Amino acid sequence: MDEAVKRFRMEPFEDIGIARVDSHRAVRNGVAEVIYGAGKTAEQIVAIANKMRENGQKTILITRLDAEKAEAVRASLPLDYRPDGRLGVIGRLPEPDGLGVVTVITAGTSDIPVAEEAAVTAEVFGNRVKRIYDAGVAGLHRLLANMDDIMSASVIIVIAGMEGALASVVGGLADCPVIAVPTSVGYGASFGGLAALLAMLNSCAGGVSVVNIDNGFGAAYQASLINHVKTREKTRK
Amino acid sequence: MDEAVKRFRMEPFEDIGIARVDSHRAVRNGVAEVIYGAGKTAEQIVAIANKMRENGQKTILITRLDAEKAEAVRASLPLDYRPDGRLGVIGRLPEPDGLGVVTVITAGTSDIPVAEEAAVTAEVFGNRVKRIYDAGVAGLHRLLANMDDIMSASVIIVIAGMEGALASVVGGLADCPVIAVPTSVGYGASFGGLAALLAMLNSCAGGVSVVNIDNGFGAAYQASLINHVKTREKTRK
Amino acid sequence: MDEAVKRFRMEPFEDIGIARVDSHRAVRNGVAEVIYGAGKTAEQIVAIANKMRENGQKTILITRLDAEKAEAVRASLPLDYRPDGRLGVIGRLPEPDGLGVVTVITAGTSDIPVAEEAAVTAEVFGNRVKRIYDAGVAGLHRLLANMDDIMSASVIIVIAGMEGALASVVGGLADCPVIAVPTSVGYGASFGGLAALLAMLNSCAGGVSVVNIDNGFGAAYQASLINHVKTREKTRK
Amino acid sequence: MDEAVKRFRMEPFEDIGIARVDSHRAVRNGVAEVIYGAGKTAEQIVAIANKMRENGQKTILITRLDAEKAEAVRASLPLDYRPDGRLGVIGRLPEPDGLGVVTVITAGTSDIPVAEEAAVTAEVFGNRVKRIYDAGVAGLHRLLANMDDIMSASVIIVIAGMEGALASVVGGLADCPVIAVPTSVGYGASFGGLAALLAMLNSCAGGVSVVNIDNGFGAAYQASLINHVKTREKTRK
Amino acid sequence: MDEAVKRFRMEPFEDIGIARVDSHRAVRNGVAEVIYGAGKTAEQIVAIANKMRENGQKTILITRLDAEKAEAVRASLPLDYRPDGRLGVIGRLPEPDGLGVVTVITAGTSDIPVAEEAAVTAEVFGNRVKRIYDAGVAGLHRLLANMDDIMSASVIIVIAGMEGALASVVGGLADCPVIAVPTSVGYGASFGGLAALLAMLNSCAGGVSVVNIDNGFGAAYQASLINHVKTREKTRK
Amino acid sequence: MDEAVKRFRMEPFEDIGIARVDSHRAVRNGVAEVIYGAGKTAEQIVAIANKMRENGQKTILITRLDAEKAEAVRASLPLDYRPDGRLGVIGRLPEPDGLGVVTVITAGTSDIPVAEEAAVTAEVFGNRVKRIYDAGVAGLHRLLANMDDIMSASVIIVIAGMEGALASVVGGLADCPVIAVPTSVGYGASFGGLAALLAMLNSCAGGVSVVNIDNGFGAAYQASLINHVKTREKTRK
Amino acid sequence: MDEAVKRFRMEPFEDIGIARVDSHRAVRNGVAEVIYGAGKTAEQIVAIANKMRENGQKTILITRLDAEKAEAVRASLPLDYRPDGRLGVIGRLPEPDGLGVVTVITAGTSDIPVAEEAAVTAEVFGNRVKRIYDAGVAGLHRLLANMDDIMSASVIIVIAGMEGALASVVGGLADCPVIAVPTSVGYGASFGGLAALLAMLNSCAGGVSVVNIDNGFGAAYQASLINHVKTREKTRK
Amino acid sequence: MDEAVKRFRMEPFEDIGIARVDSHRAVRNGVAEVIYGAGKTAEQIVAIANKMRENGQKTILITRLDAEKAEAVRASLPLDYRPDGRLGVIGRLPEPDGLGVVTVITAGTSDIPVAEEAAVTAEVFGNRVKRIYDAGVAGLHRLLANMDDIMSASVIIVIAGMEGALASVVGGLADCPVIAVPTSVGYGASFGGLAALLAMLNSCAGGVSVVNIDNGFGAAYQASLINHVKTREKTRK
Repeated sequence: MDEAVKRFRMEPFEDIGIARVDSHRAVRNGVAEVIYGAGKTAEQIVAIANKMRENGQKTILITRLDAEKAEAVRASLPLDYRPDGRLGVIGRLPEPDGLGVVTVITAGTSDIPVAEEAAVTAEVFGNRVKRIYDAGVAGLHRLLANMDDIMSASVIIVIAGMEGALASVVGGLADCPVIAVPTSVGYGASFGGLAALLAMLNSCAGGVSVVNIDNGFGAAYQASLINHVKTREKTRK
Repeated sequence: MDEAVKRFRMEPFEDIGIARVDSHRAVRNGVAEVIYGAGKTAEQIVAIANKMRENGQKTILITRLDAEKAEAVRASLPLDYRPDGRLGVIGRLPEPDGLGVVTVITAGTSDIPVAEEAAVTAEVFGNRVKRIYDAGVAGLHRLLANMDDIMSASVIIVIAGMEGALASVVGGLADCPVIAVPTSVGYGASFGGLAALLAMLNSCAGGVSVVNIDNGFGAAYQASLINHVKTREKTRK
Repeated sequence: MDEAVKRFRMEPFEDIGIARVDSHRAVRNGVAEVIYGAGKTAEQIVAIANKMRENGQKTILITRLDAEKAEAVRASLPLDYRPDGRLGVIGRLPEPDGLGVVTVITAGTSDIPVAEEAAVTAEVFGNRVKRIYDAGVAGLHRLLANMDDIMSASVIIVIAGMEGALASVVGGLADCPVIAVPTSVGYGASFGGLAALLAMLNSCAGGVSVVNIDNGFGAAYQASLINHVKTREKTRK
Repeated sequence: MDEAVKRFRMEPFEDIGIARVDSHRAVRNGVAEVIYGAGKTAEQIVAIANKMRENGQKTILITRLDAEKAEAVRASLPLDYRPDGRLGVIGRLPEPDGLGVVTVITAGTSDIPVAEEAAVTAEVFGNRVKRIYDAGVAGLHRLLANMDDIMSASVIIVIAGMEGALASVVGGLADCPVIAVPTSVGYGASFGGLAALLAMLNSCAGGVSVVNIDNGFGAAYQASLINHVKTREKTRK
Repeated sequence: MDEAVKRFRMEPFEDIGIARVDSHRAVRNGVAEVIYGAGKTAEQIVAIANKMRENGQKTILITRLDAEKAEAVRASLPLDYRPDGRLGVIGRLPEPDGLGVVTVITAGTSDIPVAEEAAVTAEVFGNRVKRIYDAGVAGLHRLLANMDDIMSASVIIVIAGMEGALASVVGGLADCPVIAVPTSVGYGASFGGLAALLAMLNSCAGGVSVVNIDNGFGAAYQASLINHVKTREKTRK
Repeated sequence: MDEAVKRFRMEPFEDIGIARVDSHRAVRNGVAEVIYGAGKTAEQIVAIANKMRENGQKTILITRLDAEKAEAVRASLPLDYRPDGRLGVIGRLPEPDGLGVVTVITAGTSDIPVAEEAAVTAEVFGNRVKRIYDAGVAGLHRLLANMDDIMSASVIIVIAGMEGALASVVGGLADCPVIAVPTSVGYGASFGGLAALLAMLNSCAGGVSVVNIDNGFGAAYQASLINHVKTREKTRK
Repeated sequence: MDEAVKRFRMEPFEDIGIARVDSHRAVRNGVAEVIYGAGKTAEQIVAIANKMRENGQKTILITRLDAEKAEAVRASLPLDYRPDGRLGVIGRLPEPDGLGVVTVITAGTSDIPVAEEAAVTAEVFGNRVKRIYDAGVAGLHRLLANMDDIMSASVIIVIAGMEGALASVVGGLADCPVIAVPTSVGYGASFGGLAALLAMLNSCAGGVSVVNIDNGFGAAYQASLINHVKTREKTRK
Repeated sequence: MDEAVKRFRMEPFEDIGIARVDSHRAVRNGVAEVIYGAGKTAEQIVAIANKMRENGQKTILITRLDAEKAEAVRASLPLDYRPDGRLGVIGRLPEPDGLGVVTVITAGTSDIPVAEEAAVTAEVFGNRVKRIYDAGVAGLHRLLANMDDIMSASVIIVIAGMEGALASVVGGLADCPVIAVPTSVGYGASFGGLAALLAMLNSCAGGVSVVNIDNGFGAAYQASLINHVKTREKTRK
């Protein structure tokens, strides 16, 4: 046990007043560091990002960043803002080094903001990404027209609101892990995404696991871990 | 208004102590009368059925009838018991006189009891019925193999538990009304059928309406009304 | 199976960047095409509508369209805006060709927006529509005064918030299919329409099926399918 | 304040080991004392009842008493057992001394156990009771046939499961207070009486208040207080 | 049955375009007529009120009326606006003619808007009203200081948010019917009044019935029916 | 940090096959060790208890132990079984060494099993315990008769089902911490203790915190920590 | 009983029109008086605070006070405003006189507003406070780095949104009472703090009790009662 | 598209009366076939298993198989029954051919049945499995003692009931994908696993996705897909 605990205790972290900056995660993931933008001022975001850059971080992802704050951050830092997914990227996207392709599929056009959060996040973590949008189960031919992409993916992220049926249908077609993201798209008895969430958790198809409502970032993070299994194996030895 | 109210007031009903026997519904539907078997003793069921037969009713359907009670009823009356759907039929099934075919589709084998309740009920009300069981969305090829039956149906009853995705997929393929029945099949976050119910209510496909969890009878009653639209038109004049 | 799958695969769809335009549904319904207006900009709506018109679509319905956006769309296209139901219609209403009358009944005056969404949608899909508004069960005489319309309808759409009791009462009076629409009208323990939704799902009257809260469009779509059963029969052969 | 507090403090109560026997309530109600039978053994019930009789109590009501326990109590005490409402009565029913009639209406036959709990309780507290059973809103003519009883009641107790619509319909017809009792009769989306409870709380009719699911006793207690307003007025002076 | 149905059918109602004006309720209650102000424009309110006045109605109550709309109504009609309860009164308050006093008790000061809606409504329907505000159970001495008013009331309306415990405590002290009104006062696990609602429905004290969350009007309407039992008896003969 | 982590890492635990026996907790609490009896066989309980005794543990508490299993355990070990709280005690109760008295109050007699679980647990952890049972708020005089015990307690555990109002009332009277335990006593809208749980979380009285439904053990554990504050202070130095 | 009731009755309270000012609580707590700022105008707050100061109160805490109202109050009274916790303090903070340290730990930076409400409240009631912020379980090393503060606390307040796991982890490490405060921080399936609330109620660690969502004040009030056990003991004699 | 659809259509399935046997899944996974045992008789299980063996399937897993049915199946087939996880295995376990180790961690001993369902399923699908049981967060040292296994896993399955905090803690320590399984272990406010489910969905740690309550099989299926990414890559080409 001594070895493990020692390694655990040694990991660095710092305090810059606003929030503790955790360099620990960067050590393990080696690629990009993330700032959760919601609830932080532009000043706080800039301060944290600068600290990260001082520590040698090349790529920084800022999530849940609205357009106005992005404008303010861009005044101080070279920010690439993606309004669809409300994301900002500082630094270059890394070369894709995952095992295969992460495919992102949405049921409707209203699910695209969550999908873009997932797709850009996956790119920031070094994954090649394929987007298939507006392929809901009410028009099955749209989905089947993308059968080759579904069969060749390493991981699939399925993003759907309303009844969330797309996760089960894709789960039945694909032979790779499916990460399902329920969205709050819908009204009435969708209860803010609850209907889609429950549907996805009860999926009759194997190989489907679920993240929180609208959590495109979390799905991409999980997909990236899966898509880098081989890389991690190597690093470990 | 006078005419309508008079007609309404005139309709007959009787009291036989246990429960008021409503001959009113038979007048309007003209085919079969129904006894809801749950919570009634075999003696009560026999008494009510006899009263109905005295009033000239040819076909009587008893729903939610367990095997033991069925045995007891059969001692007094010529009962055709269908254990799969927990239904008893007294009298002959009428000749099918609906506009087309009522197709009953289930997602899994565990949904069959609800499906049989629906299928036999539809037959009792004078409908031709086509059964397609165990065609859930995780094995889409099973469903597509039945594409011709789906395209030629007048009404489709979709029966599914767990995530209830089948309703949306069939709703997207068919061009006739779909009546969706969520079932309590599942565990954990299916919450006794709630997940399937919410999914069906939020269906992204048009032409899907929903009845209560496990309510195979209600779905068939609605399907039969739809499948007899033309007949009713004639009766009315 | 070959035949069915081929037909299914052949159906056309196109991609115009914003959203895939599905001409598939039009082929099957033959009457009108629908644009879901919520979450789309006026520019997107105009682009999609123009594409539809190029494909020969005569009548286009835009749902969930607020007044401001309607104004902007009207600058480019001949839009007939119906503020009560937040609907826009491009092109002429088709001649009613359904089997009978679709009757729309509301419990209160606050349910009228949902009712108008249903009524105009039904008209756009080729149905004759009868409106009976503000006939809730607390004033039963109002409802009974419309007994003739209830008895002569082919399909009835019942729209009610609060306790949703109107669906059961109409279901008990009518002998045609009833499509029930719970509305979010109410406060406190109505929980955004949940009380009415549950009540309608538990209706003790036969022949009642339910759509999502406030989903006037969905109810009308289902009612139209029912009211065109005969027409469809013919088309099929 | 002195007077009120003194009176409040003086009220007697005793401890007989099993449970404190509250003679306080008897002082105020003057008629009958109640033992809640669920969770008590026959021996405990007998002990408490004997203590009450020693204190001069003439009529004792035991609620939620199953048949087996009733048998055991009857070995020691002169018990009049009513299996329909699972109630036992010790001593004579008092002469009705309320202002008018308490009318008990149920939607279906399955609601009768709750209705009998209410009806007998009301009788034990000195009320004349009128029973109207199986008059649900799906058969409105049954209800209207009892219009005279509805119009002449002093208080009405409406008992209904499933969608609970009867409370609103009766509330709209009657001009006296309506106490609504949701029952757990139903399945699926009735969620153990929740659907009926929410419906009754959202009643669009005035003059409807609600008690707990299956709480026939509570409804009768409230109805009896209302029906004795005048009597209480006199006692007070 | 003929008599009852005839009387029922004869009752007048009119249509003035905006909403059917129901003179029916006025016939039965004989005192005041009510306009539900939420969702109506000032113009609609004025039109309805004028129609009522033409029909001879002396007192009109407008509920859920915000200050701005009240201003606009006052331009056309002699409106007495009560901002605390968001109520408007047209015409004089009637002389109290109920059996006794309706006492309105609140747990906190935040419950006062609902309490004022109840209190003024009760006055409009001819009841003498006693107000006891801010007497929650965390300061029991405040409540006990009002013991005399509690003991001499004919009906008590208890209004409380948060945990709603006041209903049970008052129910245990009083010997008259208690109408409990849960309010949406609270945060977090009060879930918009759900906590208080459930608590009141589960009250361990007898004689407590419940209306919808924040429904001060409904509680007062029920209390007024109770407080006029004797009067109604007379009217009926 | 070194010191703390070392102490933390050093703490002993053992594996005896069935479940790891944690001697760690005993080190910190110094008094008694607990075995959660539910889901363990009598053999497993005996094995774990023997291991604890070998480690020098003097007093062992077994919770959620039904009578049958208790009988089997008593065959091997000197067990003092308390059927009311379904608890078994091995070894002597320690001398009370807490700062003051832990008072346990229940609303009704049905809450006693949870109360006894709490009371005996508190005794096992070295607290003097005062029991006040059946003192619900519907009979406030019962509660006020125990005012001296309430005012002199160091910690009070309030145990109530149904509407759970007792927690707020006691919280308003007492000046010490109150630990509230909702129980599953009740029916219908108590939803298995949810009503009481929500009520207690929303308590308007200060100094009330809440544990899980029916968790008498957890309340007593917390109360004991509070009642030993002084002792712990000393131990620490 | 006489003594207790007399003391209870004697406690003073006054009415100043807006709200009854309760001097009762001050008598018992002896330190500070609290005004709940939400829903009160600045004028009302000033009036109440002045009344309290006339009664001799040295320190007054105003909770849920937004910046704008604070500005207005400061015009009349010497207010120390703490924007992080939305609190205002009038008068000096008392010298800490509790037994030990109240430690406040948050999972994330978004939980800080609730934490500051708790921390300042604890200081106002005479407690020494230690703050450990942003120490969520996803970075366990951050928490373990504060092991000494955790082990030496008298009471710990754990504040966490999302999954609320921090309460269990701290509960497992500490040997003093833990008061857990779920926060509404999160989105989607956090359902406004419900996820954290349920997690904390189900904590597998002993010694954890829970207050309402976002109720930093309530947690601090409870913690202060616990931290003053000894002091209260003395006062009592 | 032609190629994809053809492959999809070609996949074989058969009908053996009881349930369609899907050989499709075996083609894709290449290892084992699964029979869901719940709701099937021993005869049905034997018939399906025999059909699979005729088709050349070497290893068959039967889930949710109780001891009695297992006994009956063993009469006809060489069944290796694992009572802890209620699983039966026919045929030999395959040689592990995954990328690394699948580690299964439970919070308590009551979670072991779900864990064994997961562990044996993973073995049947060709994975090396490491079990770490009873390592809940209340005893963090137990978890940290297994730090090496956590750091070297390819995929981790975390199984926890009650508050489900273990998923977040492991998610924060590990650098591989975590599949979280909430269990129905708990009582009261665990609401059958809902508390753990919500906690896991809201996990503050990255790389955690969730399956249905008690779904050990589904977690293992997903973990196996992840652990075979490399193998699948090869197969595909």
